[in-house]
Amino acid sequence: MLTYDAGQGERKNWIVAEMRFDVRHLAKYETIMCLGNGYMGVRSCTEERYAGETRNCFVAGTFNKFDEREVTELPNCADMTELDITINGETFHLEKGRIHRYIRQLNLRTGELTRSLVWENNEGEAFEFVFRRFVSLRNLHLFGMRAEIVPLTGEAEIAIRSGINGQVTNSGAQHFHEGDKRIFDKKLLQMTATTTESNIDFAFTCTHRHRIGERDMEPEPRLSIGRRKVAVEYRYKLAVGEKITLEKIGGIYTSLDREFAACGAAELRERALIDLQTEAAKGYEQLLLESAEEWSRKWEKADIRIESAHDFDQLAVRFAQYHLVLMTPAHDNRFGVGAKGLSGEGYKGHSFWDTEIFIMPYFLFTEPETARKLLEYRYNTLAGARRKAQANGFRGAMYPWESALTGDEATPDWGPVDVVTGTPTRIWTGAIEQHITSDVAYGVWQYYRTTGDERFMERCGYEIVMETATFWASRLEWDEAAGRYHINDVIGPDEYKEHVDNNAFTNYMAHWNIRTAIACHDKLRQERPELWSRLNEALHLEEACREWKAKADLIYLPQPRAEDLIIPQDDTYLHKKIINLTKYRNQREVGLIFEDYNMDQVSDMQVSKQADIMVLFYLLEHLFPREVKRANWNYYEPKTLHDSSLSMSTHCVLACDMDDTALAYRMFEQAARIDLGPNMKSSDQGMHTASIGGIWKSAVFGFGGVRSLDGKLRIDPRLPKEWESLAFPLYWQGDRLQVRIVQGRLEIVKETGVRPYVEFTVHGKPYTLKDRLEIALGQGEV
Amino acid sequence: MLTYDAGQGERKNWIVAEMRFDVRHLAKYETIMCLGNGYMGVRSCTEERYAGETRNCFVAGTFNKFDEREVTELPNCADMTELDITINGETFHLEKGRIHRYIRQLNLRTGELTRSLVWENNEGEAFEFVFRRFVSLRNLHLFGMRAEIVPLTGEAEIAIRSGINGQVTNSGAQHFHEGDKRIFDKKLLQMTATTTESNIDFAFTCTHRHRIGERDMEPEPRLSIGRRKVAVEYRYKLAVGEKITLEKIGGIYTSLDREFAACGAAELRERALIDLQTEAAKGYEQLLLESAEEWSRKWEKADIRIESAHDFDQLAVRFAQYHLVLMTPAHDNRFGVGAKGLSGEGYKGHSFWDTEIFIMPYFLFTEPETARKLLEYRYNTLAGARRKAQANGFRGAMYPWESALTGDEATPDWGPVDVVTGTPTRIWTGAIEQHITSDVAYGVWQYYRTTGDERFMERCGYEIVMETATFWASRLEWDEAAGRYHINDVIGPDEYKEHVDNNAFTNYMAHWNIRTAIACHDKLRQERPELWSRLNEALHLEEACREWKAKADLIYLPQPRAEDLIIPQDDTYLHKKIINLTKYRNQREVGLIFEDYNMDQVSDMQVSKQADIMVLFYLLEHLFPREVKRANWNYYEPKTLHDSSLSMSTHCVLACDMDDTALAYRMFEQAARIDLGPNMKSSDQGMHTASIGGIWKSAVFGFGGVRSLDGKLRIDPRLPKEWESLAFPLYWQGDRLQVRIVQGRLEIVKETGVRPYVEFTVHGKPYTLKDRLEIALGQGEV
Repeated sequence: MLTYDAGQGERKNWIVAEMRFDVRHLAKYETIMCLGNGYMGVRSCTEERYAGETRNCFVAGTFNKFDEREVTELPNCADMTELDITINGETFHLEKGRIHRYIRQLNLRTGELTRSLVWENNEGEAFEFVFRRFVSLRNLHLFGMRAEIVPLTGEAEIAIRSGINGQVTNSGAQHFHEGDKRIFDKKLLQMTATTTESNIDFAFTCTHRHRIGERDMEPEPRLSIGRRKVAVEYRYKLAVGEKITLEKIGGIYTSLDREFAACGAAELRERALIDLQTEAAKGYEQLLLESAEEWSRKWEKADIRIESAHDFDQLAVRFAQYHLVLMTPAHDNRFGVGAKGLSGEGYKGHSFWDTEIFIMPYFLFTEPETARKLLEYRYNTLAGARRKAQANGFRGAMYPWESALTGDEATPDWGPVDVVTGTPTRIWTGAIEQHITSDVAYGVWQYYRTTGDERFMERCGYEIVMETATFWASRLEWDEAAGRYHINDVIGPDEYKEHVDNNAFTNYMAHWNIRTAIACHDKLRQERPELWSRLNEALHLEEACREWKAKADLIYLPQPRAEDLIIPQDDTYLHKKIINLTKYRNQREVGLIFEDYNMDQVSDMQVSKQADIMVLFYLLEHLFPREVKRANWNYYEPKTLHDSSLSMSTHCVLACDMDDTALAYRMFEQAARIDLGPNMKSSDQGMHTASIGGIWKSAVFGFGGVRSLDGKLRIDPRLPKEWESLAFPLYWQGDRLQVRIVQGRLEIVKETGVRPYVEFTVHGKPYTLKDRLEIALGQGEV
Repeated sequence: MLTYDAGQGERKNWIVAEMRFDVRHLAKYETIMCLGNGYMGVRSCTEERYAGETRNCFVAGTFNKFDEREVTELPNCADMTELDITINGETFHLEKGRIHRYIRQLNLRTGELTRSLVWENNEGEAFEFVFRRFVSLRNLHLFGMRAEIVPLTGEAEIAIRSGINGQVTNSGAQHFHEGDKRIFDKKLLQMTATTTESNIDFAFTCTHRHRIGERDMEPEPRLSIGRRKVAVEYRYKLAVGEKITLEKIGGIYTSLDREFAACGAAELRERALIDLQTEAAKGYEQLLLESAEEWSRKWEKADIRIESAHDFDQLAVRFAQYHLVLMTPAHDNRFGVGAKGLSGEGYKGHSFWDTEIFIMPYFLFTEPETARKLLEYRYNTLAGARRKAQANGFRGAMYPWESALTGDEATPDWGPVDVVTGTPTRIWTGAIEQHITSDVAYGVWQYYRTTGDERFMERCGYEIVMETATFWASRLEWDEAAGRYHINDVIGPDEYKEHVDNNAFTNYMAHWNIRTAIACHDKLRQERPELWSRLNEALHLEEACREWKAKADLIYLPQPRAEDLIIPQDDTYLHKKIINLTKYRNQREVGLIFEDYNMDQVSDMQVSKQADIMVLFYLLEHLFPREVKRANWNYYEPKTLHDSSLSMSTHCVLACDMDDTALAYRMFEQAARIDLGPNMKSSDQGMHTASIGGIWKSAVFGFGGVRSLDGKLRIDPRLPKEWESLAFPLYWQGDRLQVRIVQGRLEIVKETGVRPYVEFTVHGKPYTLKDRLEIALGQGEV
């Protein structure tokens, strides 16, 4: 069972803690206590090994394909976190003997993971352990570890074996050629490796330091070099109460890193050694301090405060922010955010619509330059999107459902078991979940309208908006009988409906995409003739725009039915059979319906994986009156299994929009517990990064009521009764605002002076902010 | 600590047992209790998983190369032995709770491995387990497993997850493309895979059966298909005392198998399913019975009886015979015996001189058709040996030091750490340990002179003898000053001396090789002109033989020094410095000298890894008088670390030859304990197959005094005082003899009638055996 140490004083609501070791929950804590910095992610496996652990370390962007039958994925890097500790001849681990005073804590404020415990072996000898660890937010290549051991009941002979282990794989797939292995001066360990297909060189490097009591020492190590392995073993003799401290500083450097792009493998190795040695000389405490300072800066910029009846709410939002930093390669616009970030093998490091719709908004309103980089990633992968369009007989840019380094489609073809046929289930999303293309364009537009960043639009944004529109124009299918354009054979956000026609979300978003392109085009042609010319030359805009204009308003947009205001999710959903879903809605695990039905059968029922129409209401809210939203919620939500982690936060925001804060709070509580909650299995493969973005969205977009609506800021707060206040920073058009909502009042401060004033509405009333405003909120408005 | 259950009655000296579970010794028992049949070898990992286990399964001959930087190796097959057992929500394994009545036993007579225990979990609930397992010696593709669980103290909910797991690697190297995964009728599981470089298709197939109490049942499984994995999970509810029995029958089928050579991947899959289903229908007990019957036949044919003061001696010889069956691909002459058999990753499945010099003799005297196949393997790899000669600027056949499927050199270039430089140590054996070439020829000659198998010689043998002689003729280096041929820059059997000139063993064996070729040539030319013509055409014998004759007797053969009878091991050995080796000779682990010195330094001392001159005395014993043997023993043995497992048994045989049975017995006891002894680490990477052959050699060649000397049988028994009798079967020139030696007497029976009589000598006196002879042995002769 997951437990939290809310922390006291300064630590209050900054600590995620495991209070009891349970080997069944290894994977849960490996994931949620993951360390990282957007460059690398290191699962928090324990120093000692257990069967069932998953030792993962990923470096953003370093994709490799095992063979032609597989899709590209982030390769699992050599492990440096293992310490093989032998005490009086016995391997230390916690499944034998007895454990006292156990606590493992992730400090979200500093990014340090600590574990302390007293272990009593079967002979009754007791030893105190303190393990600490961090991944540096200052030097992105670095991590530090530290182990203290004190024998409490008698003298002890202790051996610690530590090094670099490249025998790890991605569930069996080995992505590296073995390179050189070396131990310099019995101290500095290095192993190199090169990815087998993408030819990226890696240099794994580490070194150690020792102290007995307060005295530095340098024991003679036993060296070993094995297959894909290099290690040293240190032996110590300790008296009762004497403490041994081992520090290990490690680093990962790759030829994909911008700073090493120009150097060959030999220079990479050399520079890795120099950097690591220079840094390691500072020692663990200093390196941790430097990293923690970077964390402080992050928290200062993005601090969100929630006064809630439940401390957990504050912790959950910080937990989300912590992981948003870990998952996002803010250092390099060539890389996207993986659906599991860098925290596990799930989804192979691929980026989905999760980025634009669930993750980017956080950065957009707190760290817009990072949001921009995420969109530049899409720009950098345009060539792949064009290849995908062409390969499928379309024009323009067709973004991949799963995106890696090049923008080529990276969705695997086969998934989990089909219980009916006993074969793997065919995965269709790569071929037909096409709304990703408008989602990317939507992200671009959101960014533009929130930041006003014309430069980005000129360099990247317009091209994305127009090329995606061109894709849709080529994708539309003319239905002669109906006299309109259809979009057939797709998957919408609700992935339990495959091969449907006219998924409402898809059609509306395609329409929005083309309409937005037309607006851009017309504006550019008039106002920016030079830019227009350049784009026209590259993209044949004139011709393209003719087609957009000819087709846009003939796209079929499913309307609410007169009798009940229900918008058909697709052409057939409402005619499918309705079954009793109680068994699956009350489940702790997701996807349980597939133990009884296969995808074909599930496709044939009125059952949804996740929000579908709801996401449409969220993205294009101005198109749908509140009563339509409510009617559709009442129809669809009971048929929704929330089997996607994207579902709850969208529902939370929608519930706020519908003014039902009690319902919204229930949804928030569930969304906040997708990773940080009591389900001890669902995070095994890594964090649910979209859900993590969703936690922030639930707070700021949901209860905070913030929305960027075509260049206009709206703040319609609706705090749940459990919250006394909510305060958050908010970036808007170059300025940084501080918003604080308390029951009955909205305080807003403009901290910077890029623009003379900021206009916004609160529950429909317009306001102009110069420095500071305090706005009283009416009954029912908070 | 290793323990033995000598067994009672029928089981006496047939059982290798582990009496206490200790997780530190997993690898030891995985290796020594390995199951197999020469087609496949399965390490005896437990059903439940532990960190530090090595789940290995190898199929003979299926070599694959991970990449161009690595050498080819036997790929680790998908694991089917794991059973993930959950009891009342807790994963079953033995590092927690308490263990009662634990015993794991390998029955050498039947080939069945059993493990029984009572496990008490931390809540005090007790469960009885009986696990059983075998690999079939009848249908080489099959293995069977069986698990019984009885809750002893309360009712229990038990879940068992079982299937096929292809995530395993060779220490990180993945050799397979993932293929199809399928569960037929919720019952029959199949996964296919194809090796990445050698393109061998594998079909892994398995199925389950259940019984509660004595009643068959078929629980509904939960199916799962994952990456490189397919599994089913069964759940049972048991009352106190109620027993659940799960049987699992699995099979491995490959496109390299002769019977599937003609079929494509689809047919292989299909035929695997049919075979597995047909066999599985018989059930575990019947399949075990069929396999045990094959084992019985083996034991009948090869039964060796030792009446010793120490039961262990009998057990050790049977243990050796058991593993000789496991390691040897007697079913297919395309494959060799690996230096670790099929029992571990060590030496990558490669064949060394171990085969001809240490392993083949066992088969030669008990199952000569298998000995022939091992030599046919060398014939089948002649093309590779020719390529190696050519690549190195020589002619004829230069056998690889490490041989895989093709006979091309497969020795890796780099090994363990060099403590001085901190880099991997360069492995030179592949380039310069060249005596392997004469060892192969020697094996051929031994086989021929022991069996009289002219057909084999015509097909294969002569060609090997002559092509190896041609290699040596091209390899010799003329020393103008000395007026003789030298062989410079080699490694002899003592691998602690690299780059030496005129290693005595190498020179003598090269000389022997050329001389033997000359003899063959002259005989064939005279007696078999047609055969000679054919060979002459292919091998240019006439010209070759001229060269052999011109060079043979000019080869430098180091002679015993006049002053002390010492034969210099090589040109420089005797001038190197002598250091105190006490520290390394009293070690439990091998290779400890490399913690203090690197190979260059060790090369510079009078320290030997293993027998060198001794092996020469053993192979060409007629060339050296006993006093020379003794003098050299006294000189070299104290400088020998016995760091090779090949060393002890050779010393044992030599000690017998020198009439020192007390010393020989001490050597035997050590040789017999290389795998079956108390060193819990030395077998981690797999069995020492040469040492295993050496155990038999120590008994039959050493104490039995048997030798095949250029077509003549010699039996010079010298039992140690601890042995009352030694009885063994002995194949000779087509006939099967039974030899029994008791103190003071030799009984010998001719069981078959291929030849009218058999001639042999006993301690120099000639005898002629028609049916049965009893020979009194003089004082000191036994």
